[in-house]
Amino acid sequence: MSIRVGIYGYGNLGKGVECAIRQNDDFSLVGVFTRRSPESVKTLFNTPVYKADDVLNFKDKIDVLIICGGSATDLPKQTPELSKYFNVVDSFDTHAKIPEHFNNVDSVCKQNNTTSLISSGWDPGLFSLNRVYASSVLANSQFYTFWGKGVSQGHSDAIRRIDGVKDAKQYTIPVESSLELVRSGVNPELSTREKHTRECFVVAEQGADLDRIENEIKTMPNYFADYDTTVHFISQEELNEKHAGIPHGGFVICTGKTGVNNQNKHVIEYSLKLDSNPEFTASVLVCYARAVYKMHQKSDFGCKTVFDVPPAYLSKLSPEELRKSML
Amino acid sequence: MSIRVGIYGYGNLGKGVECAIRQNDDFSLVGVFTRRSPESVKTLFNTPVYKADDVLNFKDKIDVLIICGGSATDLPKQTPELSKYFNVVDSFDTHAKIPEHFNNVDSVCKQNNTTSLISSGWDPGLFSLNRVYASSVLANSQFYTFWGKGVSQGHSDAIRRIDGVKDAKQYTIPVESSLELVRSGVNPELSTREKHTRECFVVAEQGADLDRIENEIKTMPNYFADYDTTVHFISQEELNEKHAGIPHGGFVICTGKTGVNNQNKHVIEYSLKLDSNPEFTASVLVCYARAVYKMHQKSDFGCKTVFDVPPAYLSKLSPEELRKSML
Repeated sequence: MSIRVGIYGYGNLGKGVECAIRQNDDFSLVGVFTRRSPESVKTLFNTPVYKADDVLNFKDKIDVLIICGGSATDLPKQTPELSKYFNVVDSFDTHAKIPEHFNNVDSVCKQNNTTSLISSGWDPGLFSLNRVYASSVLANSQFYTFWGKGVSQGHSDAIRRIDGVKDAKQYTIPVESSLELVRSGVNPELSTREKHTRECFVVAEQGADLDRIENEIKTMPNYFADYDTTVHFISQEELNEKHAGIPHGGFVICTGKTGVNNQNKHVIEYSLKLDSNPEFTASVLVCYARAVYKMHQKSDFGCKTVFDVPPAYLSKLSPEELRKSML
Repeated sequence: MSIRVGIYGYGNLGKGVECAIRQNDDFSLVGVFTRRSPESVKTLFNTPVYKADDVLNFKDKIDVLIICGGSATDLPKQTPELSKYFNVVDSFDTHAKIPEHFNNVDSVCKQNNTTSLISSGWDPGLFSLNRVYASSVLANSQFYTFWGKGVSQGHSDAIRRIDGVKDAKQYTIPVESSLELVRSGVNPELSTREKHTRECFVVAEQGADLDRIENEIKTMPNYFADYDTTVHFISQEELNEKHAGIPHGGFVICTGKTGVNNQNKHVIEYSLKLDSNPEFTASVLVCYARAVYKMHQKSDFGCKTVFDVPPAYLSKLSPEELRKSML
């Protein structure tokens, strides 16, 4: 008896899910659903490919549908729509719009007796969990989130749109001295510039004005103007060779005090160092698909987030095994 | 409307709970229950003190009883017995006996419609959670737990029992090079000696044979023989001045691989650096008391562990607030 999963959307994240399913033998992968022509899509492990429009034919063949679309336009429509028919997991990460997305999905799920979990992954996701655990334990605490070192797809895209830029990759890097300051427990006020730096590797078109490109990057509002940014011009070969990966990671650090006079300091730190952001995110989605399956089996319908899931539901192991081997 | 708590047992952990309750305004502290003569016990914040034997008189005045006894002899008896009448939280930490303790408490709770949570704290507790989260996300992963730098009460006691020793404090210290090896993802096999060292600060009685004492420490089976141990003889004044605290902490590090050829490595690391082990443990117990209260309100009876508790139950914030501010 395995949990039957469908992958809806087949980019880097969908491929990551395909890989992750293979590592978890309590799952079986029914198929990949794509808006492209199915014949044009070659899956990593010969998973069958179907038209996205045909997904309703699989209503009784899929226990959990993992939606691997983008947060900007795909997920706000797809997750509520597909929650009418399926239990769904998504990785919606537009923080400001999470409450609205939650409400949309929740009402659909409750009308249709489905269980969907939104905003899974590592941030939102595992980082969110650590913010809640740490600040629940240490009542008067403060937490800080740092990202990187890692590739920001959005910032890389922004550089690529500049005239004269052929290709580019942008790394977000946490400022080491600020990490240390936070760990010391002084609860610093940190500006945007003090938390992260940005490093850009840019392939310019032949004859392009490099000074102008560098200046356009460094002064770009929202994306770079508020950061200390360094720009390196390199060849396409070097970019392909040294910057092909999609690493990421980061830190959630929480400090607080206890004792009669608040004299004792405590530091709770959680960090991730990931070679592949989409593959790791996909691994989180898959274990939350397991939890969604269990919650649906218990008739626990509605929209869920990582905050609602008992940790035991994520594991393949039984509660007895978990208590014996992990507690 | 606040959660009414009783503290059963008033050592360092009980005092930590008394401090933690003051930081959480959704709790009220009903009293401390002690086996000593109540008149002889002075609480930190004038909390009323009662005889342990009188606790049943408070059956309807306490929502959750936090038991602050020891794992060796107190908790195996107290938690099942008191779960007949109260919702209980304990910090039972004898790993090998957790399944037995769980079953004992579970049957009592189910017979009496109470909700009790055992083995809360940081290990077992927060560390256990991180072992489950990490190994659920990364299916073919391996995790390692390191403790320290911190004071081991048991090892300090063992030294104090040696002839000629007046006082002593023992620190458990993780081996930095082994931490680095684990983070590198090579999944090393580490012996006991390779994971931790032990550092002892000993006050000898006047005229005692220091070489003999040092030798007795270093060769003590189970406690020190399997470790690289250093012994420092110092004065009582220096011990009191520099080693009065009860710091602790540690690391849970999990590494795993993903991708078509398992080519991408991921490192998940959780660490604690605590000035006061009992006060931090107490803070964990208090936020799990909040969860126990909520579970009991929902008629979710029986014995629970940290694996069974949805993270949102730990927080004072509403689910809406959590999604808005922490997701």
